[in-house]
Amino acid sequence: MKPGDHVQVKTKKETIKGILMPQQGSFVVIKLKNGYNMGIDKKKVVKIKKIKSGKGIGKIKTKKVKQKKDLPKVTFIATGGTIGTHVDYKTGGVFMCRTPEEILATTPKLANIINIKTLSPFTTASEDMSIDNYKKLAKLIADELNSGAQGVILTHGTDTLHYTSAVLSFMLEDLNKPVAVVGAQRSPDRGSFDGKMNLICAAHFCKSDFAGVAIVMHGSSSDEFCYAIRGTKCRKMHTSRRDAFRPINELPLAKIWTDGKIKIINENFDKRSDKKVVAKTKFEKKVAIVKVFPGSDPSIIDWYIKNGYKGLVIEGTALGHVPTGESGTKAGKFNKKMSWIPYIKKAIDKGLVVVMASTTLYGRIHPFVYRNLRLAHDTGMIYGEKLPSDMLPEVAYVKLGWVLGQTKDCEKAKEMMIKNLRGEITKRSDAKSFLF
Amino acid sequence: MKPGDHVQVKTKKETIKGILMPQQGSFVVIKLKNGYNMGIDKKKVVKIKKIKSGKGIGKIKTKKVKQKKDLPKVTFIATGGTIGTHVDYKTGGVFMCRTPEEILATTPKLANIINIKTLSPFTTASEDMSIDNYKKLAKLIADELNSGAQGVILTHGTDTLHYTSAVLSFMLEDLNKPVAVVGAQRSPDRGSFDGKMNLICAAHFCKSDFAGVAIVMHGSSSDEFCYAIRGTKCRKMHTSRRDAFRPINELPLAKIWTDGKIKIINENFDKRSDKKVVAKTKFEKKVAIVKVFPGSDPSIIDWYIKNGYKGLVIEGTALGHVPTGESGTKAGKFNKKMSWIPYIKKAIDKGLVVVMASTTLYGRIHPFVYRNLRLAHDTGMIYGEKLPSDMLPEVAYVKLGWVLGQTKDCEKAKEMMIKNLRGEITKRSDAKSFLF
Repeated sequence: MKPGDHVQVKTKKETIKGILMPQQGSFVVIKLKNGYNMGIDKKKVVKIKKIKSGKGIGKIKTKKVKQKKDLPKVTFIATGGTIGTHVDYKTGGVFMCRTPEEILATTPKLANIINIKTLSPFTTASEDMSIDNYKKLAKLIADELNSGAQGVILTHGTDTLHYTSAVLSFMLEDLNKPVAVVGAQRSPDRGSFDGKMNLICAAHFCKSDFAGVAIVMHGSSSDEFCYAIRGTKCRKMHTSRRDAFRPINELPLAKIWTDGKIKIINENFDKRSDKKVVAKTKFEKKVAIVKVFPGSDPSIIDWYIKNGYKGLVIEGTALGHVPTGESGTKAGKFNKKMSWIPYIKKAIDKGLVVVMASTTLYGRIHPFVYRNLRLAHDTGMIYGEKLPSDMLPEVAYVKLGWVLGQTKDCEKAKEMMIKNLRGEITKRSDAKSFLF
Repeated sequence: MKPGDHVQVKTKKETIKGILMPQQGSFVVIKLKNGYNMGIDKKKVVKIKKIKSGKGIGKIKTKKVKQKKDLPKVTFIATGGTIGTHVDYKTGGVFMCRTPEEILATTPKLANIINIKTLSPFTTASEDMSIDNYKKLAKLIADELNSGAQGVILTHGTDTLHYTSAVLSFMLEDLNKPVAVVGAQRSPDRGSFDGKMNLICAAHFCKSDFAGVAIVMHGSSSDEFCYAIRGTKCRKMHTSRRDAFRPINELPLAKIWTDGKIKIINENFDKRSDKKVVAKTKFEKKVAIVKVFPGSDPSIIDWYIKNGYKGLVIEGTALGHVPTGESGTKAGKFNKKMSWIPYIKKAIDKGLVVVMASTTLYGRIHPFVYRNLRLAHDTGMIYGEKLPSDMLPEVAYVKLGWVLGQTKDCEKAKEMMIKNLRGEITKRSDAKSFLF
């Protein structure tokens, strides 16, 4: 039996029919009729029966598409994710899109837009992306842009796409050209495959005047247009919709159609230039997001201190609150054990950099509105001073790790955290950007 | 000097002018001209100077409003928050709205809609709401509804309003009448005070046919209408906007205008009945939300095990992923230390109940789509079986605490977690509900 064969897998509990995919570790992977992959622990498999031969793993039948050498050179970096694998249901063949020809076979129109060079430095699902992966990507992208590429398209699983776009935004200093981060919510073998349109729009984006990292994905649930969203202001807001990636606290940079039309929505971006990109990849891994909620135990901060953490992002409520355990002037019991204030203070005294970000995602934190906020602010936690922060918790995390990779000095780190470096802190949010 | 006086507070760094508010702990609280309160650590105060006398804390000048005894009886429970305090800038008086007359003075029209009884069991800022507060509220509400109240209006700070609405939804079994949870994003002394309209719409809601807990707050950023949003499907999505409370994964239950017009949007709700409400307030406090992100250290699970936790909600990515540390078939380094799988398995083996909820907020998790999801699901983590869950992480947390208060049996708890008990798991989401 080989990948591509139509099989029937029996476990004690169920019988699953589908197309055998390449085995992953201790799992038998089956492509179901609905296009989803299912992994079944080998230990649980009672029997596998072949129903019909498939054509196995192979190359996609490609019409030899000629790349047009006079088109702008764009480097295509594939890292894995839904966009990168598909099954041909007619032949039962399983395909990995890695070579330029294979990508052109999925989306042949790309050859009319850009001249592609393809790289595949590693294949990793987005939930397993690591800081080391980010470093490798940043170096690769800087090298490509500094040696002639007019732009970079990076394909990636969608779950943590917005972490990657944010971390690359920080790591790539003086970024002079467009970097489009692209994924797909549906695999290429499905009728609703969104990667094709995303890739075409990303290619057009790579020819544009923009300099910086942007996520280019479906703007609506149908195949109408894509949005290019700033890499530091984007978040996956739905588990499965094709238009899951949304801008937070600012409008998208641009609306892009497959015919190459680009409508600028948000003028606030850097322009393509001749600068040299510098990959600053140092990153402090001992950084974490800590979420507070009613009843949350603040002594967990001690765990982070004990384990050598250098920075924490507190995902607080609304304007930047943490439980103080101190309010309740009438009948409420004061519960000092529930107060986050002394623990945050302790962390800061021990040299950790602590940053506030709001769990509401939309809107700006503000330390001076209420007494309890002042209390939290007085610990030394960072809210942003003249310009209170509207950074996403995920972006604050990535920024803090990167900042602490650049400097070990707390005061310097604090300065960098409150400064807008890559568009991550918006000066004024357009009211229309709420739930855009 | 007394609260209400116009003062000037000098610290080493700044001079602040405003109205002196009642002192809170070790803080001098000043109401600034923009309506915000500022708390200043007493230790940092160099000098306070009185500029002008105010009328002090007092009763709001109330026209004696006659309650109409023939109107439906509604119990008003005040717990604190922005909606409950205000300053009269003309007199410098600081007011606490506690008695029915004072509330009627803020929103006199209420007397034409309902016959109010007021209770003020405690005054606690929403960031300091505790499980004990929730228990007290549930008992109080059940008592009121079982002894003649036609509905309950609960006022509350906004930061954790949606936790309270969710926990009351679970604690109040056989809830037979409407419970409206209401707050304000602006205090009553400001022109943009939203509490007035919220209260009026809540009063209309309390006369409606609805049975259950709903958040009643501004539906848009102007004073047009309110939405009533199911207590288990609502989230504060903006730090400061008046229409910050949005329904997630379903449409609002109803649109309510101040003139009493109610338009039902979502028919899926229980009707007012003669059942007796039962307050089931047992709650397992050893429950937490644990957020995963790229680079997150899974060994933090050991901290929860060691500290006697009984349940965890994993806020995973998109369809329900956690880092497995195992993908990367080509050049990625396998990093078993980063895999959450063995730690989650260990927690479950030790008897903890572990539930998945998505950090995307919108959409449904699904354990069978990808191999790594199957891997996570096979740990015994709860995703929902026939009906994959679309519970918010915050709601999953509150539900898990409540469920483990009702039963110590893991299997029973699992059954309850995957069952829709209070509208917290939607059968089918209306596509229009995305970013509604």
